[in-house]
Amino acid sequence: MTQSSIIDTLAFRAGEIILYPGASGPKDRIYRVESGLVRIQSVDNDGNALTLRFVRAGEYFGEEALAGGERDYHAEAAADTRIAQIHPSRMSPQETLELAAQLVQALNQTYDAIQRLVAQRLKNRIAAALIGFMDTPLAVRDPRGRVMIHVTHDEIASAVGSVRETVTKVIGELAREGLIKSGYGRVMLLDIEALGRLARQNG
Amino acid sequence: MTQSSIIDTLAFRAGEIILYPGASGPKDRIYRVESGLVRIQSVDNDGNALTLRFVRAGEYFGEEALAGGERDYHAEAAADTRIAQIHPSRMSPQETLELAAQLVQALNQTYDAIQRLVAQRLKNRIAAALIGFMDTPLAVRDPRGRVMIHVTHDEIASAVGSVRETVTKVIGELAREGLIKSGYGRVMLLDIEALGRLARQNG
Repeated sequence: MTQSSIIDTLAFRAGEIILYPGASGPKDRIYRVESGLVRIQSVDNDGNALTLRFVRAGEYFGEEALAGGERDYHAEAAADTRIAQIHPSRMSPQETLELAAQLVQALNQTYDAIQRLVAQRLKNRIAAALIGFMDTPLAVRDPRGRVMIHVTHDEIASAVGSVRETVTKVIGELAREGLIKSGYGRVMLLDIEALGRLARQNG
Repeated sequence: MTQSSIIDTLAFRAGEIILYPGASGPKDRIYRVESGLVRIQSVDNDGNALTLRFVRAGEYFGEEALAGGERDYHAEAAADTRIAQIHPSRMSPQETLELAAQLVQALNQTYDAIQRLVAQRLKNRIAAALIGFMDTPLAVRDPRGRVMIHVTHDEIASAVGSVRETVTKVIGELAREGLIKSGYGRVMLLDIEALGRLARQNG
């Protein structure tokens, strides 16, 4: 990213809303996550959030600026996050190709979500979501090398297209089977291999 | 699209496979639908097809070439279709921006699919799919102005993430309610307004 296409960088604390539908401000810029993690979600009239995808460091969001469309999602900092505001019109051809490549990856992530929603049970989707969080800032390794994911049942529900009550039940099941240990706002992964098998399993 | 970035154009009959996972041939090109309609779908080990998105005239597929990733979907001509093979590296900056804008629209289409899968019943998703087919070559208007969609129950099932047997039941329900008339490989839309209401309804 050359200096000229970056307007400025902004910092958000975990939980802060970065963009929302109908937000005022310029609509001709896109955003690149410099560090942290951004959750792109839709919120229905009853306030239920559905995660459409996660945007990791090096990836873009706010791409509707390119298509001249309306923003119909919320972007929320899922961890402490820094983003760069970018003028798409000032990007170099190489940067534009990089952006297109990122959009392809975003598209593949949503393909994956569609396939999981159709083919997998909730338990498998939750395992996949937990594994997916492992390479994000939500994951912290403790001194014994165990992976702790800082995520609430609500956030897991949003990520897998379910509701908290049902997710809590399945989390309890995974805990009884010894695959995870669940605490307040956090899930410790105890058997990553077994979770990975669940994540790849259909039906 | 300038002449220089187009390698050649190819014609496919409805039902022909254009690309499949692991297909031989160059992996450094993308495809633009010149006319017709392309269905992007994943096929699981049991042979069940799931439509990930439709690519209409003017839109692109094969974008994994940009990200250097593996193709893990089938691209099938859903109607008689002409596609242009394009060298992404020879595209002008303006063309690359257009491509990025198309990818944003593709991403929005998949967001929409995720939201429908989570929030809508099958009946509403089928109504939405039928309405969505109206501006594709699958739709033909008869002399009385009625819209006939040339689509099988299997294809509808793939588009809404269900199976044929279940789709056939719901199609029967929609027919009994007078919203559609179902024939072999075709569905006539009798009450487009009521279908539109169903398509927008959650729960």
